[in-house]
Formats: sequence, structure tokens, C-alpha cells
Amino acid sequence: MTDRQRPPVSEAVVRRLPAYYRHLREMEAMGEHRTSSRELSERMGLTASQIRQDLNCFGGFGQQGYGYHVNELKERIGEILGLTRAYHTIIVGAGNIGRAVANYPPFRHEGFEIRALFDESPALAGVHVQGVPVQPADKLEDWIAAHQVDIAVLAVPAESARAMFARLMQSGVRAVWNFTPVDLDAPPEVVVQNVHLSDSLYTLTYRMRENERGGIVGGQ
Amino acid sequence: MTDRQRPPVSEAVVRRLPAYYRHLREMEAMGEHRTSSRELSERMGLTASQIRQDLNCFGGFGQQGYGYHVNELKERIGEILGLTRAYHTIIVGAGNIGRAVANYPPFRHEGFEIRALFDESPALAGVHVQGVPVQPADKLEDWIAAHQVDIAVLAVPAESARAMFARLMQSGVRAVWNFTPVDLDAPPEVVVQNVHLSDSLYTLTYRMRENERGGIVGGQ
Repeated sequence: MTDRQRPPVSEAVVRRLPAYYRHLREMEAMGEHRTSSRELSERMGLTASQIRQDLNCFGGFGQQGYGYHVNELKERIGEILGLTRAYHTIIVGAGNIGRAVANYPPFRHEGFEIRALFDESPALAGVHVQGVPVQPADKLEDWIAAHQVDIAVLAVPAESARAMFARLMQSGVRAVWNFTPVDLDAPPEVVVQNVHLSDSLYTLTYRMRENERGGIVGGQ
Repeated sequence: MTDRQRPPVSEAVVRRLPAYYRHLREMEAMGEHRTSSRELSERMGLTASQIRQDLNCFGGFGQQGYGYHVNELKERIGEILGLTRAYHTIIVGAGNIGRAVANYPPFRHEGFEIRALFDESPALAGVHVQGVPVQPADKLEDWIAAHQVDIAVLAVPAESARAMFARLMQSGVRAVWNFTPVDLDAPPEVVVQNVHLSDSLYTLTYRMRENERGGIVGGQ
């Protein structure tokens, strides 16, 4: 089954795809060559039949008595996730979070190439992150006009988030990895993926409290 | 309705609670005193009737012709999320991500007190983050035995994640905010909340690719 012929994958499967990729990559790094729906189900907390169904959706058929080739399955899922190409990336906001993203291993090792960093603070001008100099934010539009940008990482303070996002849209950026705590209004042709750290933190404290009350126990 | 009498809130509502809190906090910071299910629905991309249902679940009743008090509603949701107390927090792994979390505004302003940082790298020993010195990782057990720890932030490299998590469990830590790309096996009395940044990044590239194929468009 080629990718063009592939039927649309359900939202539930899509949500699990990155976890499959992550587990398979980890197994590959441990030197494992083959796996089974049972092993994957133990690692991932899903039933083996759920795993088989998921993998069937995109043509990752196991072989009777063998299971799955770890590397082949990882490559196949990586293709579906769009991880077989390079992404020219800029980071807007070179504070602690912007710099942590720049130093984040997948960024350095998996085709996400940091082409430029921008920050409003003059104190950061000329600082190098992963060999790339931080530029003043007022250079943003000119720089984007002259270069290909696939992804912008938005890591500015909350109060600048909407204005900076509008500038990125105006400049023609079509994909934003949003680390600000602000929900951005994006037109349909733009992809915004949010990392709302505070939402995750508050979910943690909520679950701690429920545990103490004897309510919901455990949970990820 | 007091909190003790409150019926269990559904998982779907729980997932939205942090976003309510975040939007209400933002509105409060902008000086807004009152809001309506309609305004909240526009901000949050939910229907007004969904908002009213959600808020009814935990006793946040609007008043006919007035709507909701921003501050009161925020405080009520903050209580349910467990944000009315202080959390003694340690950060294990003082690399880029650990330091970004230490510098993350909610940590500094909302009751998450960083009591200690640990790192395996001798190069970081004695470095101060937010005024707190980084200690060698081999001091972890002794330190936890002598101090109250409510939350441990796990920000070590992937290959150390499971071993360090086991040490935290052994030491009696019961809540972990996990920034490693590893899914941890936690007993039911332990709360683990994952921030899998790579999963978020791969979801972004998946959606970019679907957009190009003319499949799923937009999406958060």
C-alpha cells in the first residue's frame, strides 16, 4: 500500500502514532530487531488487538510467528509522520524555553534544522545557540522573505504571543509550534501545535488532589 | 456546593479545566471583571452550551443577565486544580529543559517552590538556578529523606529516565512531572504527568503533511 492510496487514519490512531514511533526508536536504540503486538502492548499500555488494528491501518502488517521488524515499522511510521525530510525551523523568543527547544535532541538529530533565532531583547543579540546567532526581532520579516521557513517555534512571553503570531502569519509561515500559554486563532491552512506546559502542570496537581481524596487513582 | 460534596468530574471536563483556568487568568490580567459563556466559547472554541454544562459540573453557576465573575470563577477552578497550596518541588536533571522549567513563570509565581536541583554532571555542581544550587545526583536519596518533596520534575536524558524514576519511587516521591521521552511504569498511588515534546513535534509534522495532501486541515 503506497502512501497516496492510504485511507485517512482516524484521529485516535493519529494521537497514538508519535508514541509508537518513540517506543520503536527506543527499542531500535537498545538493539532490538523484532517485536510483537504483545511486547508493544506491554510497553504502551494498550491491548495487543488494539496494536494490531492500529498497525493494520497504515499497512504495518505483522508476520505470523515473527511479529514486526522494529526498524521497518519505525521507518514506516516515520514516513507517515513526515519525518523523512528536513524542516527549516526558526525559533522566535530565545529565552529559556526557546533555547531548551534549540538544544532538544530531536531538533538536532532528526531533520529539524535551526536556521535562525529571534528575540526582542537587545541583551541576547549576537548570543549563539547551537552555532546560530540570535537576531533582533525587527529583522524577522526581512529574514523570512529571503529564506525558506517550514516551522516557527513560538516561545515569546505570553503578552507578545498574539502580535508575534500575527507577524508570522503575515510573513507566510504555515506551521507554528506554540510554547506560549496562549491559544492562537489560526486560519485553516495553518497548523498550530500547542505545548501548554501550565495545562500539564495543573493536570498533575489535579490528579495529586484526586489521589488524596481517594478519587481517580494513577493516570498519565 | 462544597468541594467534599462535589460529584466526580468527567475526564472530558477535567481535560478542559486547565484551559479554563488559563483563559480566566489571562482575562483577569487584562482587567476584565465579568465574562459570559458566549465570550468563553469564542475564546476557547467550544459551544456556549458546552461551557455552561462544564461550569455547572463544579458549581460555577452564571447569573442571569450578568454571566460569570472572572476572578471568582478562576479561584473556584484553581481550588479544584489544587492551586491554592504550595508545592515543594525538586528538579532532577538541570540541563536545558530542567533549567527552563525552573525559570518557567508558573513555577515562580504560582506556589511551585523549587527546593533543590540535582544533576549527574559534575560540571553543574554549585551552579545556581533561581537562587538554588545544583547538587550532585548521588545526594538525592539523603536530601529527600530529610525534606518534604511534593513534586519531582524529571528532566534527565532518556537513557537515565527509568533508573532515576525508580530512585524517586524508592525515596517515596508520589508525583512526577516527566519531561523525558520515556513512558514510566508507575504504581497506582503515584501520579506521573508526561510532557512528551517529541510526540507534540511529530504531531505537528503529521498535520503539516496532511495539509499538503489535502487531508485533515487545521487542528490544534
